[in-house]
Amino acid sequence: MRFAVLGTGIVGRTLAGKLSSLGHEVVIGTRDPAATLARQELDAAGNPPIAGWLAEHPAVRLVPYAEAGAFAEAYVNATSGSGSVPALEAVGAANLAGRIVIDVANPLDFSQGFPPSLNPVNTDSLAETIQRAFPEARLVKALNTMSAHLMVNPSALPGPHSVFVSGDDADAKKTVTDLLVSIGWLAEEVYDLGDVTSARGSEMLLPIWLRLYGSLGHADFNFHIQQAPARQL
Amino acid sequence: MRFAVLGTGIVGRTLAGKLSSLGHEVVIGTRDPAATLARQELDAAGNPPIAGWLAEHPAVRLVPYAEAGAFAEAYVNATSGSGSVPALEAVGAANLAGRIVIDVANPLDFSQGFPPSLNPVNTDSLAETIQRAFPEARLVKALNTMSAHLMVNPSALPGPHSVFVSGDDADAKKTVTDLLVSIGWLAEEVYDLGDVTSARGSEMLLPIWLRLYGSLGHADFNFHIQQAPARQL
Repeated sequence: MRFAVLGTGIVGRTLAGKLSSLGHEVVIGTRDPAATLARQELDAAGNPPIAGWLAEHPAVRLVPYAEAGAFAEAYVNATSGSGSVPALEAVGAANLAGRIVIDVANPLDFSQGFPPSLNPVNTDSLAETIQRAFPEARLVKALNTMSAHLMVNPSALPGPHSVFVSGDDADAKKTVTDLLVSIGWLAEEVYDLGDVTSARGSEMLLPIWLRLYGSLGHADFNFHIQQAPARQL
Repeated sequence: MRFAVLGTGIVGRTLAGKLSSLGHEVVIGTRDPAATLARQELDAAGNPPIAGWLAEHPAVRLVPYAEAGAFAEAYVNATSGSGSVPALEAVGAANLAGRIVIDVANPLDFSQGFPPSLNPVNTDSLAETIQRAFPEARLVKALNTMSAHLMVNPSALPGPHSVFVSGDDADAKKTVTDLLVSIGWLAEEVYDLGDVTSARGSEMLLPIWLRLYGSLGHADFNFHIQQAPARQL
């Protein structure tokens, strides 16, 4: 499948690399590739400039959002929460219509310091915000509740752990679930939370994730839904 | 230890029964015991009247909040979120000073239908609201993230699963952790999230808990923090 990953941070790079290694055609979309490639400093999260990463992943091209939209059959939104709708607008609503958008972003709000709060939250979510802005996109919230490393290396933890999907389009959720299994997720650990409003629930995991990250001092953990055996789906 | 459990719902009853079975002296506090005992209908959650439960647990007495405050060395807040501060006011601020309050309540807001949202949320929490109202209480948020049955029967699930504690008083968190272990929780599955503001994180687990409850059709599940083995505390 032809994927456009939106966003050049560690999440975007990690997912782009994994999708490419699985045989998908992948571009990374950004606002201004020349400006992005010219960066030589670490980004706000301490990641090295993307130029080196691209040199190691020659199958993945960095392109402007509109070119990503012309190319892709499906999208991964790995932009910041506040940057998501502008990025998707630059991709173009017509390019999103009927196509799957896997939304892995979280609406982190750093305006009140660290740890960040969420905005929107509780009675709305980033996923719903995107779906309202692009009603013809087939949005699936997924993979927003663990580190980038674990997103594409679920076997890095010794026992089972879980990933959540939300969205209004059952076929799109099925496609994304199959994609998650192809990445290495156990099918029985993919939990369908419900319609797009259920993404409030997975986005609202971020505050406790951030506290655990602070308490544990590392990001090598994930949520596992422990069930009674007779109850396991 | 002499415990007062505030709230006569299934959570309050379940915790009162367990604490009593462990040898603690336990009262259940309520606004008007005579009115509570006179109820013959199921409550809003479908639970039978408490009179029958009390008949089966003769060691546990139902008393007015003020009497609970005169009796208790420690409290369990199992009232509704909106009822928590009024209940604790009826217990009396002087009776809370220097004493542990284990806050197991969640600020569920049903004003916009089901599933409920949270209020307060995100930049505040019920735990912080209570701690601000009763600054001399030694508040520990705990046990608010699983069903009442699992709170006191953690071995009912086949594998490990986790419970979170938050609060400003390290000694109080240690006492509550020891209490959780005495109930059957594995010490390594008790995660200290940090100060009282970290209770935002555990309270914000409720939306995904409610969605999973809806998707799975049962409450026999809990969150487990899956870590890499070298990372396990």
